[in-house]
Parts: sequence; structure tokens; C-alpha cells
Amino acid sequence: MSTLWNSRYAQRTLGVKSSAIRELLKVTQRPEIISFGGGLPAPDVFPVQRFEEACHKVLSEHGAQALQYGTTEGYEPLREMIARNIARYGIRAKADNVLITAGSQQALDLIGKLLINRGDRILCEAPTYLGALQAFNVYGAQYVPIPVDEDGMRTEQLDSSLRAGPKFMYVLPNFQNPAGVTLSEGRRHELILLADKYGIPIVEDDPYGQLRYEGEHLTPLVVLDRDNLRRDNGFTLGNVIYLSTFSKTLAPGIRLAWMVAPEDVISKLVQLKQATDLHTSTFAQYVAYEVARDGFLDQHVKLIRQVYRERRDAMLRALEEHFPPEVTWTHPKGGLFLWVTMPEGTDSESLLRTALAQNVAFVPGDSFYANNGAEGSRHMRLNFSHSHPDQIREGIRRLSIAVKTQLRTHALR
Amino acid sequence: MSTLWNSRYAQRTLGVKSSAIRELLKVTQRPEIISFGGGLPAPDVFPVQRFEEACHKVLSEHGAQALQYGTTEGYEPLREMIARNIARYGIRAKADNVLITAGSQQALDLIGKLLINRGDRILCEAPTYLGALQAFNVYGAQYVPIPVDEDGMRTEQLDSSLRAGPKFMYVLPNFQNPAGVTLSEGRRHELILLADKYGIPIVEDDPYGQLRYEGEHLTPLVVLDRDNLRRDNGFTLGNVIYLSTFSKTLAPGIRLAWMVAPEDVISKLVQLKQATDLHTSTFAQYVAYEVARDGFLDQHVKLIRQVYRERRDAMLRALEEHFPPEVTWTHPKGGLFLWVTMPEGTDSESLLRTALAQNVAFVPGDSFYANNGAEGSRHMRLNFSHSHPDQIREGIRRLSIAVKTQLRTHALR
Repeated sequence: MSTLWNSRYAQRTLGVKSSAIRELLKVTQRPEIISFGGGLPAPDVFPVQRFEEACHKVLSEHGAQALQYGTTEGYEPLREMIARNIARYGIRAKADNVLITAGSQQALDLIGKLLINRGDRILCEAPTYLGALQAFNVYGAQYVPIPVDEDGMRTEQLDSSLRAGPKFMYVLPNFQNPAGVTLSEGRRHELILLADKYGIPIVEDDPYGQLRYEGEHLTPLVVLDRDNLRRDNGFTLGNVIYLSTFSKTLAPGIRLAWMVAPEDVISKLVQLKQATDLHTSTFAQYVAYEVARDGFLDQHVKLIRQVYRERRDAMLRALEEHFPPEVTWTHPKGGLFLWVTMPEGTDSESLLRTALAQNVAFVPGDSFYANNGAEGSRHMRLNFSHSHPDQIREGIRRLSIAVKTQLRTHALR
Repeated sequence: MSTLWNSRYAQRTLGVKSSAIRELLKVTQRPEIISFGGGLPAPDVFPVQRFEEACHKVLSEHGAQALQYGTTEGYEPLREMIARNIARYGIRAKADNVLITAGSQQALDLIGKLLINRGDRILCEAPTYLGALQAFNVYGAQYVPIPVDEDGMRTEQLDSSLRAGPKFMYVLPNFQNPAGVTLSEGRRHELILLADKYGIPIVEDDPYGQLRYEGEHLTPLVVLDRDNLRRDNGFTLGNVIYLSTFSKTLAPGIRLAWMVAPEDVISKLVQLKQATDLHTSTFAQYVAYEVARDGFLDQHVKLIRQVYRERRDAMLRALEEHFPPEVTWTHPKGGLFLWVTMPEGTDSESLLRTALAQNVAFVPGDSFYANNGAEGSRHMRLNFSHSHPDQIREGIRRLSIAVKTQLRTHALR
């Protein structure tokens, strides 16, 4: 009776394409493939032993509570810990400003539910996070894309786009997925001033902020916004909803992330989350709290930074060694990804096929553009967090063969 | 800047009221209160020890996989186990027909996303599950409510309502939340024939089906539908999406439930779930699989049935003993709830205030009606799974005082 079902689908299913990333995840599970495709953290640094101790403690001491229904807002001690942790970046929040979500993807879905009516325009970076486009597409979003360069979103192009009144701005300021670039201090100020001028709220998505391998942490937009509003009366938050996650610091398989927003916004989001999944796993929250507490999280993040920095450096060196001079790439100061740019006219989808024949994978750039994939076809996203340095060197060597083949074909045409 | 945010909310936030149940959960955490309010399973039967062994096994043997990102569909061995388990009820499904969700609430949200356009009418029971109304309201659903009696939805009222073309029917056939009633065998057949006649698909929500305390399991709608379609060619599913959960058999705090549907419907749901939260916690799925396997789940469900049957019987006996003759209640053959009907003109909200003064809580009936709470004000939902039999006896005694007070006031007016 598929006909019956087909005729019943709501129009909002249109525009949700099966993600290139997730399709890739399937192919790249073949062991002979070196994959720079997924955005996977390195499983070799998952704190498995600490998780085991935490599970034991939670179940033996709080079994009845941890396995029971919980509040939609989330486990209070975890929310308090998050509020304390983000204070180091200047974000002044109470537990009441924090909502626990099932990964940042759910935070993006809730933002879509809260803010997007069909046809609303969202200002975003080009390229931007594929998962955000998917979450917002369900609610019928249109996009106003602003190109990025090594200093992040090109804010000099913002003024006219903001004047046209997008519903909100979606920005990944640190080591952006997919391009690996970071919004500079100067542009952060410029963006906040323009957002205030036109009254456009901001969704600041910061999954990677803690994973910085060089340089100083830059002030989050949520802090600049508060300073700009001169409303620093203790805990007031303003025009920014700030998102972050445990997926890149503890483990993605527990699906725990959080949103920080003014209390009245949190209260609306809580109502929507209640209708969406009642609440995030009580057990996962108790366990994550036990894993992270007593300084473990900070100590563990230092280890991750060290491991990922080494992998990033291995990838940058291998690219220098193997890639032809007409190809360029970003130099991310943190995060999980870098972004490769090939000569105009390159087709990264056909390059992927050639690469897979060499047993190496990446994500073609097309997936990361809101309106028209075509501008992404000379790009590829490479993940450096998941593979060991020797795999990275071998993978980049293989990929360089595919790239050179593609460039030769391109030159012959 | 709440003004700025307020002006930005999408219209779909309208109609989502803060749930009476969840507000109650907050009040009723005071230890002196005996609460028949929440739909909480008994924490004293959570298999805590088995969870602990499962966590140890999962982390020591599959730590890297269980803490990593997973596929949107869910953990294959868990989906296979579910397909095997539901075969005993005649539901013939493969793992490919099963999608793991973050509780049944997420299944309802995904159904809203998949099927409901603003203004679509959904046929449902009156009263019906509050969480479903909340999930569907977000997508702008309207409702066609059909009253229930002790034999479930009154199918003799269906014909004209179905002719008006609702988008789908939402039905809780077993020990319905809130009324505790079960759709009779005869009405199941009638419902399927009418659904087929008018081409209306069915969402069959069955969280309590395994918790039957007397009588024989009745055939699920999804099975009757297949038989009716004469499409029993192995694994074909037809017009029914079937939902169930581990929340009432293992523990709700792990947020694990599932949907069963034809493969092309599952494939659409997977795309929507990917945009919603990428996937359900890998760790929770590995752990639930280890907990449930090797016959443990069946054995544990037997224990739950025994404990809940005793509590239901304690509540029925206490109601007989203490409640005045003009008040009636349902006699659920399973599940977690029974439904009390008071004389016309009773106001269950003011009754709740009187009851809370007596340190006993319930959920007023108004919350469970789609279109107009007023018809619910002579009803209350009582949960019998969460409290010990002696608490149940004492709680019903206290509640009877509140009820008698209310009836006296009512008579005086």
C-alpha cells in the first residue's frame, strides 16, 4: 500500500535528501578504505574505562532515578556543571539557561521548530554544516548564504543581506564544519553590531570550540552580544542561542549536547522538546555527569587536543608533500576538518569515484551549500580526527593520485 | 531581548501547552504526596543489576563502537531481536521494517513530521494520549475525536467521520492511556474494514500490550490489516504503522522505542529522523540489547505483570471500599492506568486542588481531550503502577475524602 502512504506524506518531507555523509559512512566501513569522510571522533581516545566506572557508580547509587523518566530540561547537576564550564569563556549562564538535547542535531531541530515558518530565510555561511541544512529544510527554510574565507564569514557582504530581514543567522565561528576556518575577532564584532542594527538573532553553533590546537580562544558571539547590549546584570543573555556538545569531547554515542539561551526562550524550547521526545536519556545524563566531573573532562580534552593536533599536522604535511600546486587547502587551528579547493571546473563527485577505487574516501563539497551544490564541486572536506597519522599519510598519498588523474582529465578536455 | 525572540517564534509553537502531567511531576516530588499522577513505571522492578552487567559487557567488549556515532535506523541486532519478539503476536517484520526511536514520543513526532500538514484532521480516541496531541499539535493538526467505552473506540460512530477523510487514525488498542480500556476483537475487525473502505492509514500505539494481567492477547491492528489485504506474502506490511517501547518493560530512562512499518515508509522516517537527532544513543541500544537478550526480557515482563496486577487489584478494591456509589471507574485488563468518572458537573481541576491538600495527586481528565477539555472535567486518570499497594490503599482513602467533599459542594450549589 505504498501508494496510500505516498499520497499522505506532508510536503515537509520534500527537500530532505539522504545525507551524502551517512551514505558514505556505509561504503567506508569496508576495512581496506581509509576514510576522511565521516566527522567521527577517534574511538581510540574514548574514555571507556571511565565510562565503565561511571556506569557502575550511577547504577549502584542512583539506579532507580537514572532509569526513570526525568525532567525535560535535563539533569540538574549536569546543567549546573555546563553552566560552570562555559563561564571560562565568559558565558554567564545559570542552570536555568541550559537545556540538554539529544546531540546538537536535536538542538537544530528544536530551533527549526521554534523559529522557522515555511519560506523563512536563514542567513548562513557558504559552505555550512550539512546537518543544519537538513534540520532547517524540514521546516521549509530558504537560505541567504554568505561566503567564507580563512577568517570565516565575509562580514563585509552582510549588510545588504541583513537588510533583507532573515529570520536568524546560523554561524559556526570556530573551526567551522566543513571548511575548518575560524571567524576572526574583528569580524565577530562587526557581525554583532550588524545583527543588533537590524535586529537579527543569532544561532551560534560551537561543537569544536574546546578543540583548539594553536592560538588563543576567541570571544564567543554570545558574550560579545551581551557586552554590546550593556545588559551584563549578572546572568542576562540576549540575541544569541549558543549550542555545544559532549560528542566531540566525551563520545558521540551517548547523544548529549546543550543549548544556552535566555530563560523565556529556554521555556519555549522545553515545551517543544517535551512534544518531541519528553526528555533526553536520564541514564546517559547521569553517566556523562559522573564521567565529566572532578576535572576529568578538562584533562581528557587536553589528551584529545594532543592527539588531533598530531593528526592535523600529519595531514597538512602529507598534503604539502603529495598534492599538486594548483590545489589549496585551509589550515584549521582546531576542530576535525580541513577544506580542499581544486581548480575551477573540477568535479568532486567524479573525483570521489576515482578516490574510492584507490580505497580512500572524502565528502564532496556540494553537500555543504544551501542553494546550489554546483559551487561546491571544486571542493572536498577532509576529516583528520578519525585516522591514525600513518593512515593519514597513506590516505593522502592515495587521494593525490586520484586528484592528479582528475586534473589531467580536466586538462585534456 | 525577549521582545525580539517573541516576534520570531514560528506559529507552530501555538497550541503546545505545558503538559499538566509534567507540571504535576514537579509538585508531586514532595515526599508526603502519594501520586497517582505520572505514568511512571515502578522503579523497584527496574533490572538494575542486569543493567550493570550489560554496561560492563558492552564497554569492555564493544566500547569503541558503543560510544561512536551509529546508523540512523538503529543497532542491527536490537532491530532483529525486536522483529523476532513481535512475531509472537503475529506481526511479521524484518529488521528493515524496524526503526529505533528515542522513546515513543519521538515516534509520534516523526509521524507528525511525515504526515501532518497544518489543518490536517487526525481521527483519535476521546480521551486519548496527551503526548500524541502535543506531538501532533506542533504540526498544526486538527482532530476528529471518537468517544471510547469499556470496549475501546466506539466504532459504530466511525463511518461518517472516516467519510470526511482524516489524514490517519491514531489508536491505542490495549489498556489505553488514559482510560485503561481495550479495543474489543469485534471492533478491531470493524475498524480495519472501515479504514480499508475509506483508504485511511492507522497509527497503532501499543506501549502496554505486553502488560496484560488477565485474558488473552487480542490480535494487533497491524496483523488484521495484513490479513484483510490478503498480502501475506512473507513480510509485507500495509496500512498500519505500529509503535511500541522498552519504557514500560525495561526502563523509561534509556529512551528506547521502535516503529514498525513498510520499508518505503521506514526509509522516509529514517531521513526525517536523521534531520532530527542523527540517531538514537548507540550506547543505550547496545546496553538494552545485552539486558534483553537470552530470554531476560520475557522473564522480566512476567515479574512486572505480577507486581502491577497486584497494584491494580489493590486500587480496584480500595475504590470499591472508599468511593461513593455515584462515581464509576474502568477495570483495565492491563497497562498502568484506570479512569474515574464522576457525576456530570464535577470539576476535576478544583478536585485536584482539594486532593493535593490531602497529599494525593492524579491527572484531571481535561488534558486528554483533543478539542475541548470541558468534557474531561468529570474524569480523572489514576496510575496504579508506581505506588506500593499500601500507598495505593492510603492514597485512594485520601482521594475519596476529596471526592466526597467535591460532591457535597456540588450538591449544595
